Amino acid sequence: MKIAILPGDGIGSEIVAEAVKVLNVLELPFEMESAPVGGAAYEAHGHPLPDSTLQLAKDADAILFGAVGDWKYDKLDRPLRPEQAILGLRKHLGLFANFRPAICYEQLTHASSLKPELVAGLDILIIRELTGDIYFGQPRGRRTAVDGHFPGSEEAFDTMRYSRPEIERIAHVAFQAARKRGKRVTSVDKANVLETFQFWKDVMIEVHADYPDVELDHMYVDNAAMQLVKAPKRFDVMVTGNMFGDILSDAAAMLTGSIGMLPSASLDKNNKGLYEPSHGSAPDIAGKGIANPLATILSAAMMLKFSLNQPEAAARIEAAVGSVLSQGLRTADIWSEGTQKVGTREMGDAVVKAI
Amino acid sequence: MKIAILPGDGIGSEIVAEAVKVLNVLELPFEMESAPVGGAAYEAHGHPLPDSTLQLAKDADAILFGAVGDWKYDKLDRPLRPEQAILGLRKHLGLFANFRPAICYEQLTHASSLKPELVAGLDILIIRELTGDIYFGQPRGRRTAVDGHFPGSEEAFDTMRYSRPEIERIAHVAFQAARKRGKRVTSVDKANVLETFQFWKDVMIEVHADYPDVELDHMYVDNAAMQLVKAPKRFDVMVTGNMFGDILSDAAAMLTGSIGMLPSASLDKNNKGLYEPSHGSAPDIAGKGIANPLATILSAAMMLKFSLNQPEAAARIEAAVGSVLSQGLRTADIWSEGTQKVGTREMGDAVVKAI
Ligand SMILES: CC(C)[C@H](C(=O)O)[C@@H](O)C(=O)O
Ligand SMILES: CC(C)[C@H](C(=O)O)[C@@H](O)C(=O)O
Repeated sequence: MKIAILPGDGIGSEIVAEAVKVLNVLELPFEMESAPVGGAAYEAHGHPLPDSTLQLAKDADAILFGAVGDWKYDKLDRPLRPEQAILGLRKHLGLFANFRPAICYEQLTHASSLKPELVAGLDILIIRELTGDIYFGQPRGRRTAVDGHFPGSEEAFDTMRYSRPEIERIAHVAFQAARKRGKRVTSVDKANVLETFQFWKDVMIEVHADYPDVELDHMYVDNAAMQLVKAPKRFDVMVTGNMFGDILSDAAAMLTGSIGMLPSASLDKNNKGLYEPSHGSAPDIAGKGIANPLATILSAAMMLKFSLNQPEAAARIEAAVGSVLSQGLRTADIWSEGTQKVGTREMGDAVVKAI
Repeated sequence: MKIAILPGDGIGSEIVAEAVKVLNVLELPFEMESAPVGGAAYEAHGHPLPDSTLQLAKDADAILFGAVGDWKYDKLDRPLRPEQAILGLRKHLGLFANFRPAICYEQLTHASSLKPELVAGLDILIIRELTGDIYFGQPRGRRTAVDGHFPGSEEAFDTMRYSRPEIERIAHVAFQAARKRGKRVTSVDKANVLETFQFWKDVMIEVHADYPDVELDHMYVDNAAMQLVKAPKRFDVMVTGNMFGDILSDAAAMLTGSIGMLPSASLDKNNKGLYEPSHGSAPDIAGKGIANPLATILSAAMMLKFSLNQPEAAARIEAAVGSVLSQGLRTADIWSEGTQKVGTREMGDAVVKAI
C-alpha cells in the first residue's frame, strides 16, 4: 500500500508529521513517500503542482494532504497560486466525491459558537461534488459585454454546469452513505433560479427511485444556510454541488466548534482518495508548534477506512483520539478552563501512546 | 408620494396590512395602491407579475412588498412560479442595490442560536448586488455536453457574469454606506477560483481609491460564511454578488435570532426602492394571525428614509417598535418566558399606539 504524503504550506508539515507518526505506529505494510505541493512546490519547482508530485499522487493508493496557501503568494498569477494544486489534484485524479463530516465532539460542545443544546451530539455528513460546477466549467474569462446591463463594457464570466452522469454518481454516493447512517438525504439546490440546479434536482429525484429506503428532501441553498445556523441537527446527509458545498461545509464545520478536529475525504470512482483536515494552512501560527494535529490524524483514519481497507486500524486511531480528549489534553484552538494545553507534537505523542 | 402595495402570498397580506396601518397613522400625503403579485397574481391573472402590477410598481415612488411563494405552486413551470415576480421586479426596475441589515435587537439577544456574547449589539449591513451575476446571466439552459467529464451527455448550464460598471456602482453604494457607519467594507469574493470574482476584487480595489477614509478588506465566501458563524461582530459593511449575497445575508439574518424583525431595501440608481421583510411567505402559518409584522413595519420605515425623504417619520416608527419590544410584547417567533405573546394585529395596533 502506497501513501503519498503532501504536507504543503503553513502548518501543513507540522500536522502531517504527527499523522505520519501515528500511521507508523500501526505497523502496517505502508510505503510512504513525500512531495512538495502548493507554495512549497512553487518555491522548489516553480509550480504549485509539479509533474513529479502529480505522478506520485497518481501512483499512490491514497494521499495524505496537509494544507496549502499563504498570503505571500497572493500576488502570483492565478495558475501559480497554491490553491491551484488542490484544484489540479481533484481534477486530474477525478476526486469527485468530497466527504465533509460536521461532528460536534462531546468534550468540545462548549467550543461551538452555537448554544450547547443546538450542537450537542451533532453529526452531519456533507457530501460535496468536487470536480464539476462553476469551478471547472468552460468558457470563462474576460471579454467585452455584448448584452446585459452595460453592453460594450468590460466583463468577466464563468460557466456553471452539471451533466447528468456527474449528478447521478454523486447522488448514488449520497444515498449509499445515508443508508449506513440516518437514511435521510437533503439535496441542496437553487432550482428556483438556476437551470443547472433545476436539472440537479430532477436527477436527484430520478436516482432516488433506486433507494426507496432512504428519505430525500430538497432545500434551497439560502434556506440550507439558515437551517444550519438555526437547527443543524435536523440534517443527516446533505448533498450539493461544488460551489454551494464549499460554503455550506465550511459553515457547518465552523459551527461545530470542532473545526480543528474535522477530517475530510475526496474520493474517485474506485475509492482512491485524498485526505485532508477541514481547516486551512493557518500561516499565522505556522512553525509555532501549536496547531491541532487531530483533524489530520483523523483524516489518516478515514484513509485507512475508505481507501486502504483497514477499518480496525482506523478504529484504533479514532479510539485513541477519543481517549486523549477524555484525558483533558487540548491544543490552543480547543482549550478551555480546566483542561491541559498541549502543543502539536505533544498531542501527536499522546495519540501514539493511547494506541 | 405614491406607494405601490404588493402583499403577495402566505402571510404577506397579514403583515403588509399592519405596515399600511402604521403608515396611515403618520398622516403624510401618501397615495397607496395595491396589486396582486406572486401566486396570488398567478391565480388572478395567470402570471406572477402581471403587466398591471409591473406598471403600478414602475409608476410608484416606492414599493412595499410582503412575500411570495407557496408549496402549491411548485409544480408550475419556472416562468409562472411566484419567485419570478420578485426577480422580474428587480430586473425591470433596475433594483441593483440590496440592503440587508443584520441587527440583533437588545431585547432579543437570547433568541439567537449563537451564544449571547457573540451577538449582543451585533449590527452588520450586508449589501448584495441584485440584478447581475448568475441570476440573470445568459446563456443558460440544457444541451448536449461537447466537452467536460462526459461529452455527449445531457447537461444544464448557467452563466455567471459581472461587468465593470455593475461592480463599480455597487462598490460606490457600499463605500458610501460604510462612511455613515463603521467605515469598514469587507468585499466577499471567490477570486481564487472564479474569473468573475477576481474581476470583482480588482474593481473593488480601484473604486476604493476614491474612499481613502474607508477600510477595505477581502474575504473568500467560504471564509465569510465561517466568520459569520464564529465572530459576526467583526463585520461592519459586507458587499458581495447576487448569489453569495443570497446565501450570506440569509445566514446572517437567521443568526441574529431576530429574522422576524429585519427589513430590507432594494434600490435603483435614483433611490427608488422596493421594501420587504427579510423573511419569507411562511405558508405554514398563513391566515392564523400569528406572523410577526415588525420586519414589514420596519421596511416601511426604511422606505420613508431611503425613498420618500421622510427621516423623521421613519424615526417615529423605529422608536415605536423599540417601545413595544420594551413593553414586552412578542409575536410567537420571538416569544420567551416572561414576555407577553401577541398576534399580528395586536402587534400592529401596539406600534400604532406607540406612535
Ligand atoms: C482553496 C480553494 C480553491 C478550495 C475550494 O474552494 O474548493 C477550498 O476552499 C476547499 O474547500 O477545499
Ligand atoms: C425567491 C428567490 C428567487 C430570492 C433570491 O434568490 O434572490 C430570495 O431567496 C431572496 O433572497 O430574495
